[in-house]
Amino acid sequence: MTDDPRLTALADSLPSTVPFVGPEAQERARGQAFKARLGANECGFGPSPKAIAAMQAAAAEAWKYPDPENYDLRLALAAHHSVDPAHIGIDGGIDTLLGVLVRLLVDAGTSIVTSAGAYPTFNYHVAGFGGAMHQIPYTGDFEDPERLIAKAKEVGAKLIYFANPDNPMGSMHDAETVQRMISKVPEGSLLILDEAYIELAPEGSAPTVDPTDTRVIRMRTFSKGYGMAGARVGYAIGPRNLIGAFNKVRNHFGMCRVSQTGALAALLDQDWLAHVRTEVATSRTEITRIAAENGLVALPSNTNFVTVDCGQDGDFARAVLAEFIALGIFLRMPFVAPQDRCIRVSCGTSVELKAFAEALPQALAKANTT
Amino acid sequence: MTDDPRLTALADSLPSTVPFVGPEAQERARGQAFKARLGANECGFGPSPKAIAAMQAAAAEAWKYPDPENYDLRLALAAHHSVDPAHIGIDGGIDTLLGVLVRLLVDAGTSIVTSAGAYPTFNYHVAGFGGAMHQIPYTGDFEDPERLIAKAKEVGAKLIYFANPDNPMGSMHDAETVQRMISKVPEGSLLILDEAYIELAPEGSAPTVDPTDTRVIRMRTFSKGYGMAGARVGYAIGPRNLIGAFNKVRNHFGMCRVSQTGALAALLDQDWLAHVRTEVATSRTEITRIAAENGLVALPSNTNFVTVDCGQDGDFARAVLAEFIALGIFLRMPFVAPQDRCIRVSCGTSVELKAFAEALPQALAKANTT
Repeated sequence: MTDDPRLTALADSLPSTVPFVGPEAQERARGQAFKARLGANECGFGPSPKAIAAMQAAAAEAWKYPDPENYDLRLALAAHHSVDPAHIGIDGGIDTLLGVLVRLLVDAGTSIVTSAGAYPTFNYHVAGFGGAMHQIPYTGDFEDPERLIAKAKEVGAKLIYFANPDNPMGSMHDAETVQRMISKVPEGSLLILDEAYIELAPEGSAPTVDPTDTRVIRMRTFSKGYGMAGARVGYAIGPRNLIGAFNKVRNHFGMCRVSQTGALAALLDQDWLAHVRTEVATSRTEITRIAAENGLVALPSNTNFVTVDCGQDGDFARAVLAEFIALGIFLRMPFVAPQDRCIRVSCGTSVELKAFAEALPQALAKANTT
Repeated sequence: MTDDPRLTALADSLPSTVPFVGPEAQERARGQAFKARLGANECGFGPSPKAIAAMQAAAAEAWKYPDPENYDLRLALAAHHSVDPAHIGIDGGIDTLLGVLVRLLVDAGTSIVTSAGAYPTFNYHVAGFGGAMHQIPYTGDFEDPERLIAKAKEVGAKLIYFANPDNPMGSMHDAETVQRMISKVPEGSLLILDEAYIELAPEGSAPTVDPTDTRVIRMRTFSKGYGMAGARVGYAIGPRNLIGAFNKVRNHFGMCRVSQTGALAALLDQDWLAHVRTEVATSRTEITRIAAENGLVALPSNTNFVTVDCGQDGDFARAVLAEFIALGIFLRMPFVAPQDRCIRVSCGTSVELKAFAEALPQALAKANTT
């Protein structure tokens, strides 16, 4: 397809792409629904029943525009984190927040550092604003804080992306290591601490970060632990002049009213989050057991997914994944070697894990014969 | 507040602003809820009951990410408009679509043409990407197609913004005039035909536009006639290589799942849209009657709002508006003279219009004595 000649040079240079193909597109291609939806680290245990009820009640009010200030949710988040609301910025998931942040800080040639194989949507935004991406390999299935900082110093990076816990490997650094990393962020750099999975990590994993610290912005989401990926709600915690700058370019009326209401109800139901944590822990154990039963090693997980080492190379894991898809099990896998020796299995209900368990030996057998 | 020193020069130059203050912020400032919500051209007659039911059912599925391809809704819209789905681009309301389009076409100094006093969110996006805005005054409370085109030729504009029906005046040009305008779009320009209110205009108002015509992109929304402003669903109809280019930068997972489901149900319930059209017509007549009862002239409306000429200057209308707000009636008004002699009243339920009718004489009396 020829591009429209009116596009900017930058837009013209970009591919028409998508960071992830959705499971619905795969279902349409297969002509059949998936039996298990374990590929996108969604929370099959669902949102809090109170959040569902709040969203159902709000549906009749969908004729009203959302509150562009996200006031109620922002106040509740500020109270939850014991920070001033000026340090909280809300938008349509971490994806949107990353897009706004990149737009504010990145233009042609701006140096950015991330890990090779880390969150592709961040890379998508950086490319979309013409930034120059520098990628550091994982060290032993962990993102490497020391090397990320060293590279940032070397290239004068304005942004350093670091997810803790990590996706797709499920690994994590302890709070002290993250604190140390923050203390080493070079002048002029900003650390994006993506904590999308932090609610599912062991209690006490999140470092205490001073919200006035200009070296770091934290990203949180309602998509994982709170089980509301389809409602598109995320938030950033950071210094007030950076959070305030989001108002320069963000889509002020971009949040859905139903989602605002639902996220508030979800936040206030911490008992449900505790329930989800228990379900996730059970599910992690079960995935690990199923893997072991098939001679595979599951990596330790601090998230709502388990990354399973298929024991061979990326081509083998890709063959395993392809067979899972063919068998009606939606999974994903890391993009980059040597992490691409693994498949990534989201925690899910016992029904979904049973389908996974049934498919795994077949997928391995098929991959071993191709 | 000092800006973060890491912002790009462009971001640094932008104000932290908001195109519109939400009614909730005004309610918080007043310490009291509004009695009538008639300021944002929301549809107080509500979404289709079928859309509400669909959203309520979808709420329990909010743990799933949305389909990034918006496949079902896109197909239904394509069928509704008898065009190929490749000509339909869906995103979070016209606001988001305008933002993406501006990002694709505008960089520093790109010339853009709009009408002075037309939709501020478009101007916000253009400023946000460094475009150079040229504004043409209204001619007799109408946007002026001839002058917009002439200015576009003069400045070599890449984008021409034209809303039909117009907001905030409620005026409209007939299909033939719009067709003629499209035929005169200069080479290298793109006409944005914002048809947010078209479902509320007289039957047959929308021109037939060839979706392959590279001179025009149409914008439509579920916020007005379909009564789903809080669900954030809009779509563009345009040439396939331009619509396809949205995939270069859009937030692929940006739509809410509940909203996708609700919009599809709303589209399929054209009977409800017909009901809303009837309610809007009744409401327009009633607002016009109330205005006349108070010696004011209501402008003819092709939308779900009525713009009422307060018969004096902008200062007077602003005083009237301020009194309405003080009396608990949320209204808005045009920004630019001489259109700012008017207030803008959204169509609403009889209860809301009764509150408006009660407040109007008081607001006029107060404005006349200040």
